[in-house]
Amino acid sequence: MRLLVPFAPDQPKTRLSPVLTPEERADFARVMCEDVLAAVRAVGHEPELLSTKPLDIDAPVTVDDRPLTDAVNAVLAATSEPVAVVMADLALATPGSLDRLLTMEGDVVLAPGRGGGTNAFVARHPEFRVDYHGASYLDHREAATAVGADVSVVDSHRLATDVDEPADLVEVLVHDDGRCRHWLREHGFRIERGNGRVNVTRVDG
Amino acid sequence: MRLLVPFAPDQPKTRLSPVLTPEERADFARVMCEDVLAAVRAVGHEPELLSTKPLDIDAPVTVDDRPLTDAVNAVLAATSEPVAVVMADLALATPGSLDRLLTMEGDVVLAPGRGGGTNAFVARHPEFRVDYHGASYLDHREAATAVGADVSVVDSHRLATDVDEPADLVEVLVHDDGRCRHWLREHGFRIERGNGRVNVTRVDG
Repeated sequence: MRLLVPFAPDQPKTRLSPVLTPEERADFARVMCEDVLAAVRAVGHEPELLSTKPLDIDAPVTVDDRPLTDAVNAVLAATSEPVAVVMADLALATPGSLDRLLTMEGDVVLAPGRGGGTNAFVARHPEFRVDYHGASYLDHREAATAVGADVSVVDSHRLATDVDEPADLVEVLVHDDGRCRHWLREHGFRIERGNGRVNVTRVDG
Repeated sequence: MRLLVPFAPDQPKTRLSPVLTPEERADFARVMCEDVLAAVRAVGHEPELLSTKPLDIDAPVTVDDRPLTDAVNAVLAATSEPVAVVMADLALATPGSLDRLLTMEGDVVLAPGRGGGTNAFVARHPEFRVDYHGASYLDHREAATAVGADVSVVDSHRLATDVDEPADLVEVLVHDDGRCRHWLREHGFRIERGNGRVNVTRVDG
């Protein structure tokens, strides 16, 4: 199985701009990506980066500056073996949650993201293609069915949590026990306990 | 095992007030609760309501008008067998996700909710008590450890999704295939596909 981690070093997490500078966003995005790579390796797979531009990182890098959909579909079209794609911003991904994804049976296995997205998938059907625009989870279900592929779904909070918005940082502070949580704490982020859902606050730069 | 579903018919989902009238919120909360009861029964357990006031529903009802923490702890203190507590607003709960919770080993099994909450748990330790104020998931981990109980965690997007805020309705529209999604669609809610996370929109009353 080929396992790809798409990464866009030149578009670092713009929706986190209310709480992080551009340099911080790039740094945090890199930390999340490296954590995902480590979790993938811990379950015995060798990840490949699919990057919008060259970067110096401890993994093979394929550069494709087209939009994500086109870059992923190019790999799917060129590869006869199963392909897994795991987003680089899954800060909560653990070897256990990735193992559930990668070992689940199904021609197409989807890990939905909060808000209708697709945070990871495994494709074992030669005709499956992606479209990350809009409610991609629903579109990918339809696309799989349209080519006659069985669909399975991994029910995982860890894989459903892509880190895009300030509220997502709460999940990292609560559930991560690795470098991402450490990075946030070093940069002053704390959970703010009150009633209802917990918020994130930044106590210093 | 006793399985309790706390329900507060007199405080129906105030954070949904931007998109639902008080009557609609009460109705939708009731539909979610009945769906949770059905999912619990589908995995072979007989649910009991723990309600802030009497209500006419197809399940045994214990009335306790104290805050949730006190009401749940009263049951934990009075019961020698294992106790499970499943929130009534888990519209995405399925028999499969509940089965993972109820069969997972551990003195205390926690299903975290998005935002640091505790959406469901199983307690098989006589001294475990709850505190739903604030970041209850972290507090419950600490509370379990403090009484010498082993803690397990269910990694489930379905159980992590309590329906409190308008954005949560997206998850119901995307992932539910039962009465909750049907209720929302009947009341005019649609997913709005664009870039990034999907939003919810209401097309009519």
